[in-house]
Amino acid sequence: MRKPEILMTPGPTPVPAEVLLAQASPIVYHRGPGFGAVLRDCIEGLQWIMQTRNDILTFTTSGSGAMESAVVNCFSPGDKVLVVSVGNFGERFQTICKTYGLDVTVIDYEWGKTAKAADVAAALTPDTKGVLIQHSETSTGVVNDIEAISKVVKDHPALFIVDTVSGLGASPLKVDEWGIDVAAGGVQKALMMSPGIGFVAVSPKAWDAYKTSTLPKFYFDWGPVKKSHDLPDPESPYTPAVSLFLGLQAAIKLLREEGIENCFERHRTLARAVKAAVQALGLELVGEDQERAVCVTTIRAPEGIDGSAITKLLRAKFGIVFAPGQGQWKGKVFRIGHLGYFERADVLQAVAALEMVLDELGYPVKQGAGVAAAQDVFAQAG
Amino acid sequence: MRKPEILMTPGPTPVPAEVLLAQASPIVYHRGPGFGAVLRDCIEGLQWIMQTRNDILTFTTSGSGAMESAVVNCFSPGDKVLVVSVGNFGERFQTICKTYGLDVTVIDYEWGKTAKAADVAAALTPDTKGVLIQHSETSTGVVNDIEAISKVVKDHPALFIVDTVSGLGASPLKVDEWGIDVAAGGVQKALMMSPGIGFVAVSPKAWDAYKTSTLPKFYFDWGPVKKSHDLPDPESPYTPAVSLFLGLQAAIKLLREEGIENCFERHRTLARAVKAAVQALGLELVGEDQERAVCVTTIRAPEGIDGSAITKLLRAKFGIVFAPGQGQWKGKVFRIGHLGYFERADVLQAVAALEMVLDELGYPVKQGAGVAAAQDVFAQAG
Repeated sequence: MRKPEILMTPGPTPVPAEVLLAQASPIVYHRGPGFGAVLRDCIEGLQWIMQTRNDILTFTTSGSGAMESAVVNCFSPGDKVLVVSVGNFGERFQTICKTYGLDVTVIDYEWGKTAKAADVAAALTPDTKGVLIQHSETSTGVVNDIEAISKVVKDHPALFIVDTVSGLGASPLKVDEWGIDVAAGGVQKALMMSPGIGFVAVSPKAWDAYKTSTLPKFYFDWGPVKKSHDLPDPESPYTPAVSLFLGLQAAIKLLREEGIENCFERHRTLARAVKAAVQALGLELVGEDQERAVCVTTIRAPEGIDGSAITKLLRAKFGIVFAPGQGQWKGKVFRIGHLGYFERADVLQAVAALEMVLDELGYPVKQGAGVAAAQDVFAQAG
Repeated sequence: MRKPEILMTPGPTPVPAEVLLAQASPIVYHRGPGFGAVLRDCIEGLQWIMQTRNDILTFTTSGSGAMESAVVNCFSPGDKVLVVSVGNFGERFQTICKTYGLDVTVIDYEWGKTAKAADVAAALTPDTKGVLIQHSETSTGVVNDIEAISKVVKDHPALFIVDTVSGLGASPLKVDEWGIDVAAGGVQKALMMSPGIGFVAVSPKAWDAYKTSTLPKFYFDWGPVKKSHDLPDPESPYTPAVSLFLGLQAAIKLLREEGIENCFERHRTLARAVKAAVQALGLELVGEDQERAVCVTTIRAPEGIDGSAITKLLRAKFGIVFAPGQGQWKGKVFRIGHLGYFERADVLQAVAALEMVLDELGYPVKQGAGVAAAQDVFAQAG
């Protein structure tokens, strides 16, 4: 007997049984009232989570497809854009922009740093057409202060484009209040859904840019998607992943029952407990602004122990999957995802298992010390 | 009580309970041996169905995304391509090619016609870089004789690109024997799966073209997908629709149990029965080469009755979904999909229900005549 692995990764994350079972419902025909009602629930739910009245456009794709759609629908070759990069997904935005022939300026922060509004203000020029940034950067765990940065972009002609694939639902994102023109999301993180649906929230200003954008696009073209989504029975231009939309509808129902503020508070508390626990074990947190980093906690591997050895042993012994370091942090860190379908008991379990694994790898652990620190956080949270 | 609708459409099609339940399995982490084994089964299964040793590349996307990937990975702006169009999806290939700035020549057949090898041979010029065609054209129901056409393309430098989204698994497609360079498929038709996975089989000649292709691409770029699929534990570069791959693995298992030749034979028999039944009711089949048209049967609406009225009433009264006419055939025809998870009893049921609906709409029906004709076909098939 082996229970399913527990995905404390930055995504995909565990999916509630109710959602999995919704995915197993018989296929609904994708044109007509049946699927129309499902898609409408999904669109309205995503507007609610994103705190926006902007159009939500959905795609059968990974989150990276939603990011690509933001680029190809807003710009034309040679357009000057500013990519604010704090890690791997910032590099992905650069790659996409360069692939499509944009004139890319990068604010390239050292990994672990968060973006600073003053740096963005200084890098903006009158001809900057877009600012692209991550909300949560899963490679380092940091969450950028999008609200602060929005203040320096809001009154500039540039579009403000935010990748919130791993942030949405865990860390607040107020699309309308903060003037975000394109927010690109995915369902497989805090939204507790199986991967396969990407989406964007598109502001009127972004639609204006769409009208003049000349970059080639077909599958990710926003125009046909809006036209289909706006039908009395919403549709998609190309056959959508019907089962996944049934799942998303169920996941949104769960999130509405919890309430979005409670969901954010849950993520804050879990993150605090994880951070307190690993610090109590003498480990070092990596990345600025830990209080904001509610999605993923990045931890420096102890001297002489490879971070990947920790994640491998934990997976083998306990079926708990943490993420190893990516890119330049390979081996040097490990990452604990605590976003999505997790509650306090999950954190207690994971910390206790981590203690045993660290001990086995020769790191001096006072067994139970991490657990006690997490317990303290939960006791205080009430 | 209302049972789920029966999707006798050209897709999506009904999904077996075993496959739906596989989709409801807990999420497997997308990097590592667990998902690797799933993806390997899917890739090998698709090679088996496509009768090819070429690379299979999978994407989380609709079938149209797989079609787009064929265009953006093989060509450069200004490349001359020949689109052989026999309906709506031929028009889609034209749209994609024009979107990406290709120099498009079209053999534009009247709807209902099949493509002729001689016409393709006549239209090929020394600088033609690609020939794009549908295997099964769902808007009209015709299935092109890809084998015959392959003979005139095979020794030409042009790439032979076949959209087999709705044909694959119902009508034979011998990718290697026929020299198909890119076959683009989807899972939501004869493969009995929920929509959301698109894929391509890529020949060495197509890989050569990839090397010089300058069209911009990111999400649909074949290079990173091949690199990920070729890992010891196959992966995808961007988070794949894990649940759908679990479903596809289960669907392929069912197809392997049936055997591909038996699957083709089942489709042939069901198609013959449907065609015999509607003809026995005095209705006219539309489209050339009906014996080959094993996926979808297109039927002219009787004088004075709108085709959409038939599909609407059948759906309302019996929960059976036929497809109405598309594009220029709107109202003039209706289409019965008999591809995927169907057997003889389903056809008998659908024909009997159709008889009642035609009668209610004022068309003179000898009740039971269509059913009797289908019964004859099945009796003869043994």
